[in-house]
Amino acid sequence: MTYAAVVQAAAWCGQRVCSGNDEMPKPTPLLDRIDKPDDLRNLSPAQLRQLADEVRSDLIETVSNTGGHLGAGLGVVELTVALHHIFDAPHDKIIWDVGHQVYPHKILTERRHRMHSLRQGGGLSGFSKRSESEYDPFGAAHASTSVSAALGFAVARDLSHGSNRVVAVIGDGALTGGLAFEGLNNAGAMANRMIVILNDNEMSIAPPVGAMAKYLSRIFSSKEFVTIREIGTQLKEALPGAFKAAAEFADGYARRLISSGVLFEELGFHYFGPVDGHDMDQLIPILRYVRDYPGKGPLLLHVITRKGNGFPPAESSEDKYHGVGKFDSETGEMETKALSAPSYTRVFSDSLIREAQADDRIVAITAAMPSGTGIDRFALQFPHRVFDVGLAEQHSVTFAAALAAEGMKPFVAVYSTFLQRAVDQIIHDVAIQDLPVRFALDRAGFVGADGQTHCGAFDIAYMGCVPGMVLMAAADEAELVHMVATAAAWDESPIAFRYPRGAGTGIALPQSGEVLRIGEGRMMREGTDAAILSYGARLADCLAAAEQLQNEGISVSVADARFAKPLDTVLLDRLAHRHEALITVEEASIGGFAAQVSHHLAFAGAFDDGLRFRPMVMADRFIDHDTPQRQLEQAGLGVSDIASTVRNALAK
Amino acid sequence: MTYAAVVQAAAWCGQRVCSGNDEMPKPTPLLDRIDKPDDLRNLSPAQLRQLADEVRSDLIETVSNTGGHLGAGLGVVELTVALHHIFDAPHDKIIWDVGHQVYPHKILTERRHRMHSLRQGGGLSGFSKRSESEYDPFGAAHASTSVSAALGFAVARDLSHGSNRVVAVIGDGALTGGLAFEGLNNAGAMANRMIVILNDNEMSIAPPVGAMAKYLSRIFSSKEFVTIREIGTQLKEALPGAFKAAAEFADGYARRLISSGVLFEELGFHYFGPVDGHDMDQLIPILRYVRDYPGKGPLLLHVITRKGNGFPPAESSEDKYHGVGKFDSETGEMETKALSAPSYTRVFSDSLIREAQADDRIVAITAAMPSGTGIDRFALQFPHRVFDVGLAEQHSVTFAAALAAEGMKPFVAVYSTFLQRAVDQIIHDVAIQDLPVRFALDRAGFVGADGQTHCGAFDIAYMGCVPGMVLMAAADEAELVHMVATAAAWDESPIAFRYPRGAGTGIALPQSGEVLRIGEGRMMREGTDAAILSYGARLADCLAAAEQLQNEGISVSVADARFAKPLDTVLLDRLAHRHEALITVEEASIGGFAAQVSHHLAFAGAFDDGLRFRPMVMADRFIDHDTPQRQLEQAGLGVSDIASTVRNALAK
Repeated sequence: MTYAAVVQAAAWCGQRVCSGNDEMPKPTPLLDRIDKPDDLRNLSPAQLRQLADEVRSDLIETVSNTGGHLGAGLGVVELTVALHHIFDAPHDKIIWDVGHQVYPHKILTERRHRMHSLRQGGGLSGFSKRSESEYDPFGAAHASTSVSAALGFAVARDLSHGSNRVVAVIGDGALTGGLAFEGLNNAGAMANRMIVILNDNEMSIAPPVGAMAKYLSRIFSSKEFVTIREIGTQLKEALPGAFKAAAEFADGYARRLISSGVLFEELGFHYFGPVDGHDMDQLIPILRYVRDYPGKGPLLLHVITRKGNGFPPAESSEDKYHGVGKFDSETGEMETKALSAPSYTRVFSDSLIREAQADDRIVAITAAMPSGTGIDRFALQFPHRVFDVGLAEQHSVTFAAALAAEGMKPFVAVYSTFLQRAVDQIIHDVAIQDLPVRFALDRAGFVGADGQTHCGAFDIAYMGCVPGMVLMAAADEAELVHMVATAAAWDESPIAFRYPRGAGTGIALPQSGEVLRIGEGRMMREGTDAAILSYGARLADCLAAAEQLQNEGISVSVADARFAKPLDTVLLDRLAHRHEALITVEEASIGGFAAQVSHHLAFAGAFDDGLRFRPMVMADRFIDHDTPQRQLEQAGLGVSDIASTVRNALAK
Repeated sequence: MTYAAVVQAAAWCGQRVCSGNDEMPKPTPLLDRIDKPDDLRNLSPAQLRQLADEVRSDLIETVSNTGGHLGAGLGVVELTVALHHIFDAPHDKIIWDVGHQVYPHKILTERRHRMHSLRQGGGLSGFSKRSESEYDPFGAAHASTSVSAALGFAVARDLSHGSNRVVAVIGDGALTGGLAFEGLNNAGAMANRMIVILNDNEMSIAPPVGAMAKYLSRIFSSKEFVTIREIGTQLKEALPGAFKAAAEFADGYARRLISSGVLFEELGFHYFGPVDGHDMDQLIPILRYVRDYPGKGPLLLHVITRKGNGFPPAESSEDKYHGVGKFDSETGEMETKALSAPSYTRVFSDSLIREAQADDRIVAITAAMPSGTGIDRFALQFPHRVFDVGLAEQHSVTFAAALAAEGMKPFVAVYSTFLQRAVDQIIHDVAIQDLPVRFALDRAGFVGADGQTHCGAFDIAYMGCVPGMVLMAAADEAELVHMVATAAAWDESPIAFRYPRGAGTGIALPQSGEVLRIGEGRMMREGTDAAILSYGARLADCLAAAEQLQNEGISVSVADARFAKPLDTVLLDRLAHRHEALITVEEASIGGFAAQVSHHLAFAGAFDDGLRFRPMVMADRFIDHDTPQRQLEQAGLGVSDIASTVRNALAK
């Protein structure tokens, strides 16, 4: 153990002890000697097995203290150890799809001592990230990107006559995204060598089939060239008597095996597998075999894993501890955080259920995020009116457009960041045809620990430029109730409403939603010197800033625009005429609400009269994971930023 | 023949004769009696065959006079006739993927008399369009949408206990788009009955296989329920002696047949086919069989067609007359239009070739548009440095990001409208990782006959909101040469440059491109009263407007911003300080260049001093197909609009 490693381990243990778990962590003598993949290249199979166990317990300890994604990482512990044993990262490029399976990889690539800082300000990202480590060749937090990226790496290598290997690891869920298919389809048509590892945790391995998988790994490790067509023949000859007794079961399995294989072979891949992704004795030989497989073209290795593997509370949980807060590493019991108010997601869900009780044309659509969007609760009430379409945002929108064309009232419930995947569908399939699809945009604005990749920054810009859209933003959870009702009632055009991640403001909720007049904002506070026009959940901070300024003798009006499109031009003109300065505030990028406002003000001649206009938007850079509050401050959108913008505008 | 039909036919013939072809069109006695699908429901098989022939000659005549998409339509003549014979549109929903295969459908659905107006102002759209006809349930001009849409129609039907059928017709090209895969994957997991017709013009039918296809159609028409697993068995028993002789050939074919089938069966579809899409005797029974197939779940019928079928010049042409101008309907000879100047596409292509000769890290990527983007010419010079990734814009961008990560200089050559498909990839894979991908955005702004679906309106907005992007727009083709050189040299961040469809301005082209300083615009003309700041190809019109105003005694500066991001703030501040009014002009939506400018001006305090700012963008509505010039005028961006905006700003 190097001195550095001792220091690192000590620092890491210190953090772990501090953060509240009473039990002593399990010892990790082998892992303590591993700083980077080089250190595990020469381990024996038995040591690799032990290392995997230590990585697993280390991972559980870490995440129990930090929270984060657990199930995905637990599922790939053995695969990660085996990959780093067989491949030569960072020379070889290992590209993880959806980075939240990447924690074991981080532990083994010089970042173990920083794992306590996971997803915290200044700490490690919860995803793979190029700027964090040379072992992360391609960052990934949205799904389905790894095959396309791997092909790019493989092509670049071949153009420059390089020798490194390229490996993509993609889950079966991410494989349902169209981007993954586009990548497979293109890679299959080309001759560049790359390896796609399909991490399949949907398919279970029953005992006899496990035996077959073992047999397959023996075939592969024998170093003969095996194609899928040869596997069938060899299998038939090799089946032991006992296995033949389970012939019927095996037949179904074989068919699935063959057809999975055919599917990928059809796309132009050489297919290998499936193998048990928790059995080091299968993984090591098959990975070595695939690594050294001669010839050209892409290879696909099908690995079967179990999410949450090796941590009973995660294995038995329905969502396999996909994303968790802190928990007890022995029992799996979660720390319960008492929310000060119901979450926006919950309020949306309740409101939509209420609207749907009154209108059976309301249906809900989610792209593989039923629990994150609150659609799971809707599904309990209306199982036939909810559609989880897979990790397929593009399809979710076009599908919704057709539902709307037939008179249904589809609500697409989606995170702002993921709807970026469906901009063309919003324009081409929804807006051009003027179809009343409802977009419920959760996680609008900063999202805290998920960081820059998940920041809901751009929705107002990418939807505001589209003719015919109606755009709303909820200032608080009571407003959200009204906006759900408004969207349910509005049948004239597409309509979207955005709301932030996390708990509401604690405001009293109305019994039922009130249908807002389209394009009508509201005055919150009357003043004389300056006006702040808020769009969305920054309203409370705008009011706080106004209060602060009041104490300084500056009288400030505050209004809630509610709509970015169509604008409340009467309200806007009044604010412009009656105040020396007008400040707009939105938790979003440039090009959104402020662009709509300034366009109107310009042609209304408001600037001709010297209106001191200050459009406050997120600073024009990507902001790392941190608390949402600190992200706001870094973006220049905190209470003091608002107050000083007003002050400076008036002082000029 | 009804009186109305006579009048229609006469009007149509009149147009045809007027527009310059000398030959008399072939008589179409049967088609002349068909106004809508109801009229062909009771035709005999022989009559349907004749009708198809008449539709084909009618289509050739029409497109020879109007220009438009020909090959795709010729490939589906029989399929269209057969579909309208077997299905009951508009009650049944027939959804055509990528509407340019839809001309025969238009001819048979009450629009034959308007076919002479195709793609012209006020005339028929070149694509399917909901607002045009009740026979077009879902408009489509971008590819790969039909399966998602069909699923929406099927689900809406089942929720409301309807009885209509839903049919999607998708080409094998469109099937490579991820959206189509997402739709298939989701439809396959659901129980709703819908029919996807795979219009496959890649797979040829050799004679013995044609015989097998015929045999298959006999199986289907026998009204027994056949699954793909049963087909194999039945085939083996039924093979004639002569066919057995061709066993080896047939084996390969059968494997492909089976594996195509397995692929779709794996996705949850019942697979039927393949059948010859030009053989009415196969099409009619199989369509009837599939229509009446009992049980639940989606069906897929694999139909083999030939693009350009039945028109020898189109059959033998490499691109099968995909999109054509006017031509001689006998010989296929195209009318040659002498361009006044080289097209922007051509200038881009030449410039990129020149840069690539000097720098072997430059590679080019296209998503199935090699000729439209000019990448075909690049490919002739650098066959190993060009990548046509299929109809897969998302993948093209992520793939390019990885190439850039490995030090290559990827140019993604793409139409502005199609890059809408890859907004998330631009943000998540390119910009967050700050990878120097180059985006060459062709067809920016209005595109004329392709209309609203292809309008390049939004790129500045959807890229301008993204931190770290460099955005340029070419004012003329000489500027484009410089921008290609600039993008080739710039390795610090992603960079994009936009340029319009069609011919350049005729300006002299530089011998080689000059690397522009990032974020630096240029003054074109100095004046004193007002300033016009142009971004992109409206510059000439801005200069013309300035000239006009000069004659009225109004002195106008004109500048070319060149960059929307980063802005030339020195130039901008100077324009703001020295003029009473500042007008920005861009051929794009709200939220783009003007949003960047107004944001800067606001915080620079330019509005505080009463600057009369007028940001001219496209009117906020979708504008129908017409000449680009008339589209500009409808959007309020013509020379007179610019002049009057300046005039009004100063007059206020």
